[in-house]
Parts: sequence; structure tokens; C-alpha cells
Amino acid sequence: MARKFIISIDLGGTNLKVALLDLQYNIIDREVLSTCSFLEKEDLISGIAYSINRIIKYNNLNKTQIFGLGLGLPGPVDAKRGIVHFFPNIPGWKEVKFRDILKKRLNLKVCLDNDAKLMCLAEYKLGAAKGFLNTLCVTLGTGIGGGIIINGKIYRGLNNAAGEIGHLPINEKGPLCNCGAYGCLEAYVGNKRILNQARKVFGRSISLEELSLLSSNKNKTAINVWRKAGGHLGFALAGVVNLLNLDAIVIGGGVASAGKVLFDSLKERLKQQAMSVQSRHVKVFRAKLGSDAGLIGAAILVKEGLD
Amino acid sequence: MARKFIISIDLGGTNLKVALLDLQYNIIDREVLSTCSFLEKEDLISGIAYSINRIIKYNNLNKTQIFGLGLGLPGPVDAKRGIVHFFPNIPGWKEVKFRDILKKRLNLKVCLDNDAKLMCLAEYKLGAAKGFLNTLCVTLGTGIGGGIIINGKIYRGLNNAAGEIGHLPINEKGPLCNCGAYGCLEAYVGNKRILNQARKVFGRSISLEELSLLSSNKNKTAINVWRKAGGHLGFALAGVVNLLNLDAIVIGGGVASAGKVLFDSLKERLKQQAMSVQSRHVKVFRAKLGSDAGLIGAAILVKEGLD
Repeated sequence: MARKFIISIDLGGTNLKVALLDLQYNIIDREVLSTCSFLEKEDLISGIAYSINRIIKYNNLNKTQIFGLGLGLPGPVDAKRGIVHFFPNIPGWKEVKFRDILKKRLNLKVCLDNDAKLMCLAEYKLGAAKGFLNTLCVTLGTGIGGGIIINGKIYRGLNNAAGEIGHLPINEKGPLCNCGAYGCLEAYVGNKRILNQARKVFGRSISLEELSLLSSNKNKTAINVWRKAGGHLGFALAGVVNLLNLDAIVIGGGVASAGKVLFDSLKERLKQQAMSVQSRHVKVFRAKLGSDAGLIGAAILVKEGLD
Repeated sequence: MARKFIISIDLGGTNLKVALLDLQYNIIDREVLSTCSFLEKEDLISGIAYSINRIIKYNNLNKTQIFGLGLGLPGPVDAKRGIVHFFPNIPGWKEVKFRDILKKRLNLKVCLDNDAKLMCLAEYKLGAAKGFLNTLCVTLGTGIGGGIIINGKIYRGLNNAAGEIGHLPINEKGPLCNCGAYGCLEAYVGNKRILNQARKVFGRSISLEELSLLSSNKNKTAINVWRKAGGHLGFALAGVVNLLNLDAIVIGGGVASAGKVLFDSLKERLKQQAMSVQSRHVKVFRAKLGSDAGLIGAAILVKEGLD
């Protein structure tokens, strides 16, 4: 019998990643396209279909060897019915029956879900939180995303919208957040806010990479920016830990690359603020699968099914 | 075949309630004892055993008709192993194998759990949140307790300590909480804090009952105290709703008797602060089973088992 493979897609506001994985979730081949080169929804769907057919052909496979196609998508979706509600950063998508469209066009089994949930699934099944039954994954970036594993399964909530740790508020009179509310975690540790903070204290524009580099070179001003961010994160996570008595927290995404200084201040604040039983038992990990987590999570979804 | 019954116990810092229920969870008989009349752990255990035997005898039953004994307990417990870790308000209990002790003494099937979790189970199975698969129950009192139903089951977390909504922090520079951390919800809407607020604005000591009465008589100062408390609650609950995309929230306990003014301000703030999908779908209910919720929850636990 011919070997089987899975095709995974990780669609972001910037990049569209397409990958071929074996059933052990090893990435065999991949390509990265620019999302904004597809101007219309129809173009993007055709681009995806084209890329999938190309990766199958290039690897000398035929379609019967493809176990299924999994997609991680940057916005709220109905994973059960395969519908995209909308994408905050890609215009033209509203209540799109994306699964049915791709199924019909490609004649493949298709599964889709929100990208933060799939990242969380991957970290739980194969990454930093392997075996930790109740886990929160946090992705730090322009937005703060999240996914929750409860009793070993993705927890979706009523509308598949669970996991919005970025919009856990931490100060009643805090700054206005992108979501329209006040004092959300994202308004304190989203990329933009951290860059603003850094610009203020350094008196010039500075990139996140430079900020990380400076702090690892013991620059006190840079260290302070990260410590502040870690403190806010730890404070918010203390609330979640008290509420959910989690086994583990996984932190990933660009900002997590600040590394030790961020994690140390996060853990310190978490320990101060959380209740003793909860804080004693929760483990805080840095994400292990990096930017491939979404692709791997999508493949797990295809192989293991929705629940 | 003789009819079967369940005996439920709701142990509080003040009262010890013992009740006889039929298998449809109707309370047939009950007695209320004063917890502090039992000075030692051993006295309390004997008192419970004595009361159970008395209620069986008084109702002309024999022990074979008792399906089991369920206990709701005021502190952290290991429900699976039947162990009491400790009671914050009853001295002398530390890592007590309470289930085994009662089983041996009474020769009955015994189940126990934390009281807030059982209240939540009761409200989900028979009360305000019947059929709402993902529900948070909040009990407002001296402390702010909570229980969480996820996918129709009590969510326990790693150490059976999940549900501590009272210790979700809402301000980084907020007041010191009983738990030792800062800015927890309980430090804003625990009974003591509300009474302090009321004393400040009225210039004299005032009870919660009077405060509720005054506000229902349109006293603006009293209304303001409740509106403030409702605002803090709504702000904290917005974070939980964003994170867990809940189906329902149930609010019970003494302070909830403030009624409409508290609920209106809570819902208003929740709507302002929570994300649109999550806030549009979550229902906020007042607890329906009142002070019997713990007894009923303990009986459900006995009949339906731990999971």
C-alpha cells in the first residue's frame, strides 16, 4: 500500500504556508506564498488549490495518497461546519463555506480551524505541553491569541471563540484596546504597545529584534521594557491559573523570543499573584514547535478529527 | 422494592445542614445545626453521624434504603480520593480522609466535593443554567466562590481547585486581598468591602439587607454602592467570557439578593467590555435553587457519580 500524506495550510495576514507532512507529522516539503499577492477571495482559493496540486505533483504523489487537507485560519471559524466567519486582516471573507468549496475543487477530505487553536493542539500533542491535560497556549504578536486544552481536547466554547486571553482585562482604567474595550492584556503587551514603550524610553524607533538583542547584552533600559511586559503577562495569567487550575501554560509567538528576561518576570509575578496550590503546580513553557506549530496542528486535526 | 433516598450534607462555617432527598432531588426532611457547637474535628464527625442516623430513623427508613451520602464542603478537597485538604474557616482539618472515615462509621456509599462546585452542578442540572453546557457559577458572600461546568461536567483542573473567580485580579494596583495578592475581584465585591463602602457613604454602619432595601426604595446612595459592585463584577466576567466563550453565568449567594440594580450594572459593563460574539451569546442568570443548591448538588453527585 502506498504511503499516505497530509497537506497543511497556515494562512496568515502576511504569508500563506503550504506543507506536505507524513502521518508522523514530519514536514517533507513546503512552500511559502505572499498572502497579499492574492487580491480577491477567488484568487486566494485558486492559489491554494494550485499550490496543493503543485506540491503533490512535485513530490511524485497522486491524490489517493493524500489522507486529507488541514487549514489553520487567522480568524473566527465554525470548525464543525467548515465556515469562515471573517478574517480581521484579509478583506472579502464573510460567512464563506470554505471547507465545501475546497472539498469540491480538490476532491480531498478537508478540515479547518482557527490558527491559535491548532497551534495549541500541536504544542499539546507534540510540543512543550505534551501530556499536560489542561493547558493554555498564548501567542504573542501584533495581537495576543490563545488556545485552551481542557481534559486533553481543544476547548471551543459556545461559538468556537474561546481562548481570547489577549482580551482578558487587567486594569479597569487601562488604555483602549483594538477590540473597543479598556485595559485588555493586548493593550499592554501587543507588539505595537511594546514598540511604543521602547520608543519612549530610547528616544528613537527600535525593532523588537534590537530590543531583544539589547536586553540579552544586559542593557538595563531594554531589560526594563521586557520586565514590564512580563509583569503584565504574569498578572493576567495569575487570574487564569486561579480560575482554571491549569497544568501548563505555553508562550509562543514573536515577542516570546525576548526569552529569559520576559519569562523570569512573568513567572515571578505569576507566583506573587496566583493562589498557592494553583501556582505551585502550573508549569510555564516556551513554545517548542515555533512557526511550524500551525502546520502541524492542522495535520493533527486531519488525522485525529475534530474531537 | 422499597423506595430509595439520598442524604445530603452542606457544611458551612456557620451552619451544618443535613437533608433527606428522594431520587428526584426533592428535599423530604432536613435539619440545621450550628457548626461552631462542634469544637473538635471528632465532635463534628460524630455530630454528622448522629444526625444522619436520626434523620433515617425519624423518617421510618432503614439504611438499605439510603442510596448514599453526599457532602458539600467549604474548602479545597480531593473529590476523587475523598480527602479534605483543609477548611479555611473550620480549624483542625488537614488532609483528612473524610470519605473513608464516614464510610466506615456509617456503612454507606459516601461522595464529597467542594460546595461551590456542587452548587454549580445543581444549577446546571436543575436550576438556572439547565442545559447550558459551558457555565460559570459565582457565589457572592464573604468570599467570592465559583464553579465551572465545561461540556456539561464539573471542571476541576489539576488539583480540583478550579473556579476561583474571586481571585481573578481586575486592577494591578488594587487593594490587598485575603489571598495575599492584589486587586482580586473579591477585594472589590466581597461582603466586607461592600459594607465598608456603604459605611463610608452613609456615615454609619449598615447591613446588606438594609442596603438592598434602600436601593429598592430608590435611595441613590445605596443604588450607587450596588452599581459600583456590579460594574466590577461585569468587568471581571467580561474577561472570563472572552476567554471561555461561555453559554451562561449564574450569580448566587447573599449579595445577589440586591437584585435588579446589581444585575443591570453587571450586564451593562459586561456588554461594554466583552467581545461582540462572546457577549452577544452569553446569558446571565440569577441562581434559582437558593441556599438548597449545595444540598441538591451533593445528592446529584451521589446519584450520578464523579464524572
